[in-house]
Amino acid sequence: MEIQLWREILNPYELAVEELTVKFDHLVREHKASGLYSPIEQVDGRVKAISSILEKAQKKHIPLDEIEEKIEDIAGIRIICQFVEDINKVVELIKQRNDMEVKSEKDYITNMKSSGYRSYHMIVYYQIQTLKGPKKLQVEIQIRTLAMNFWATIEHSLQYKYKKNMPEHIRSRLTGAADAIILLDKEMSLVRNEIMDAQNSFQIKANI
Amino acid sequence: MEIQLWREILNPYELAVEELTVKFDHLVREHKASGLYSPIEQVDGRVKAISSILEKAQKKHIPLDEIEEKIEDIAGIRIICQFVEDINKVVELIKQRNDMEVKSEKDYITNMKSSGYRSYHMIVYYQIQTLKGPKKLQVEIQIRTLAMNFWATIEHSLQYKYKKNMPEHIRSRLTGAADAIILLDKEMSLVRNEIMDAQNSFQIKANI
Amino acid sequence: MEIQLWREILNPYELAVEELTVKFDHLVREHKASGLYSPIEQVDGRVKAISSILEKAQKKHIPLDEIEEKIEDIAGIRIICQFVEDINKVVELIKQRNDMEVKSEKDYITNMKSSGYRSYHMIVYYQIQTLKGPKKLQVEIQIRTLAMNFWATIEHSLQYKYKKNMPEHIRSRLTGAADAIILLDKEMSLVRNEIMDAQNSFQIKANI
Amino acid sequence: MEIQLWREILNPYELAVEELTVKFDHLVREHKASGLYSPIEQVDGRVKAISSILEKAQKKHIPLDEIEEKIEDIAGIRIICQFVEDINKVVELIKQRNDMEVKSEKDYITNMKSSGYRSYHMIVYYQIQTLKGPKKLQVEIQIRTLAMNFWATIEHSLQYKYKKNMPEHIRSRLTGAADAIILLDKEMSLVRNEIMDAQNSFQIKANI
Repeated sequence: MEIQLWREILNPYELAVEELTVKFDHLVREHKASGLYSPIEQVDGRVKAISSILEKAQKKHIPLDEIEEKIEDIAGIRIICQFVEDINKVVELIKQRNDMEVKSEKDYITNMKSSGYRSYHMIVYYQIQTLKGPKKLQVEIQIRTLAMNFWATIEHSLQYKYKKNMPEHIRSRLTGAADAIILLDKEMSLVRNEIMDAQNSFQIKANI
Repeated sequence: MEIQLWREILNPYELAVEELTVKFDHLVREHKASGLYSPIEQVDGRVKAISSILEKAQKKHIPLDEIEEKIEDIAGIRIICQFVEDINKVVELIKQRNDMEVKSEKDYITNMKSSGYRSYHMIVYYQIQTLKGPKKLQVEIQIRTLAMNFWATIEHSLQYKYKKNMPEHIRSRLTGAADAIILLDKEMSLVRNEIMDAQNSFQIKANI
Repeated sequence: MEIQLWREILNPYELAVEELTVKFDHLVREHKASGLYSPIEQVDGRVKAISSILEKAQKKHIPLDEIEEKIEDIAGIRIICQFVEDINKVVELIKQRNDMEVKSEKDYITNMKSSGYRSYHMIVYYQIQTLKGPKKLQVEIQIRTLAMNFWATIEHSLQYKYKKNMPEHIRSRLTGAADAIILLDKEMSLVRNEIMDAQNSFQIKANI
Repeated sequence: MEIQLWREILNPYELAVEELTVKFDHLVREHKASGLYSPIEQVDGRVKAISSILEKAQKKHIPLDEIEEKIEDIAGIRIICQFVEDINKVVELIKQRNDMEVKSEKDYITNMKSSGYRSYHMIVYYQIQTLKGPKKLQVEIQIRTLAMNFWATIEHSLQYKYKKNMPEHIRSRLTGAADAIILLDKEMSLVRNEIMDAQNSFQIKANI
């Protein structure tokens, strides 16, 4: 496919990512403006690189004209939380909105992947406006804690390097790190109430 | 009203301004990505300052609990065009969208204000999501050329200084400048086709 | 030259543009924070596109290894003022700084180009830090009024389209527009003092 | 002190934070543009809130006219690294620059605070330009890993809530978490070489 065509295809996804980043970022401010603890710590968005789309299409035998339907993560939003408990709150916030419609969910936190990967994934339909009229797109939303995100970033780099052939000693170190992170998240959850209170009072004072 | 209350009232308007700025900014990129001339040159947005809201409420005898209904420009978007002809194109683009609904329009270009002010104004309803559910807001969209904007910026400063009592020699200079700007916009319109072509080919080459 | 090499060459210029944009943007805020009228209205920056660098090198017979020395506008900063009188103030502000050194100046306002182009140009040396140590770069700073900028943008598009062969009727319209803009700038200068006062009091009230 | 005076005092610190954020952010891009692993993962900056400055001045008996000299962290930059080993690299990068001068250093990684806090602190002198001429400011640079930063964020909230009176069970949980984080950072260091290679190849491919 030509670069001009790709640009036209990906353009609406860029818009979706920008709009959703603004919306989730604003949720943080809305919580703070109301003196509430925000379950969202940080929001990132990206459109998948053309090379990654092509790689995925090839691997999954997806014809080019079905890419938009079959590749659900062309547009991706990542929401980072402080605590494991915040993840469910964010999921609820997303389900309550009427500007996006949940297509599917995968809970890799309750059901950790064998690699050690943990995150909550949602695919949502989101409508944007183009010069040719409204268009409904799929967007993948990944929700995870700071600690999960730390692990996932490193695992992604290593997966990318070794493809299917990650050496056993690396894999076992990654699993070790995943265990350390579960422990850390648990440790944190035990003081979550104190921390939530602390951050609330912190917020209120900072606003004065 | 307390500052905390104002913050909660204005928070949704800030979101609306951010979302609409993203959307109109993207329209520019969408035109360029499709190799089309963009009728939009620049987009700005702002939420009215609390002091200006209060001043307007007092001047128009609006009770505080009717502010959101009666003051239509709490959220404001300004769209700057290169040519007078682009303004109608932008108005059409707005009417075609299904994410906002036009409440009213005022054409101060065909019917210039006595001060010399020229712009196309639209009030639209726009829905955002809050923690308490969806909320429909009013947003004022001002559409004008670069030259009209230049004049309006200066006139606004002077109005602000003199209130109702602008000295006659200042007023007549402003009118003189307004005439110069009408002339300039006309002069520009005469070469609009050449410029549109030129910017198209410019765009295409820049993309390569 | 390979794309990787270009990236390494242009990288320091990107940094220079970013740093200088931050610095000039801050000048605006510093004036306002001190309750002073700011002679700077808007700041833009850009690194020249590779294709434009190559075109200029070819046209001026500059060998590739002398590009950084001979092409003075690889990094460009544009400063937009409200009034013609502000331009000199900005030039003075630049000369007073000790973080850049003026190499040369061209006053195309006193001496308008035959095309009708008006702007004040300065080439400055500016030092940035790289991984290999400090590096001194050339940066072109263009200073002009809003009205001059409007004209220049349009003229640039047309030059780009017609190269050396701009039709006579277009050229004469451009000259006509240039005259209209000189008139407009003069008209504005006559009320500059009122406007400066007005914007000062506007600023002070907005800060409260 | 009046708000106007505070604004004038803090204005230069805001500029310093902006400039330094641009510079350190660019270091990341410079590494990537040269195909090198970047020891910096993320850069944040902030100017201390007026209320926090006052609190610190009171606690340390600092007269208001000595604030700029005695409070070294009015401007703060935080540099986040992936690995403990990266921290030293960043320290070296800072010492090599000639646009800042190191006043002092504290290595709370080798010598962990009793609370469990770990970070590398540097105070540097940095010169900015003001309307009244050049001005040399102090800036605190904190360098830490993602994991250390996670811990520090939470500890800061709790310190803020409890001041000197943090309950023993909270304190012991925090210490537990600090241990978990040291373990995690060690675990990560063991695969650092693989990850650095992986991210390099990742980067190179992503650039194509």
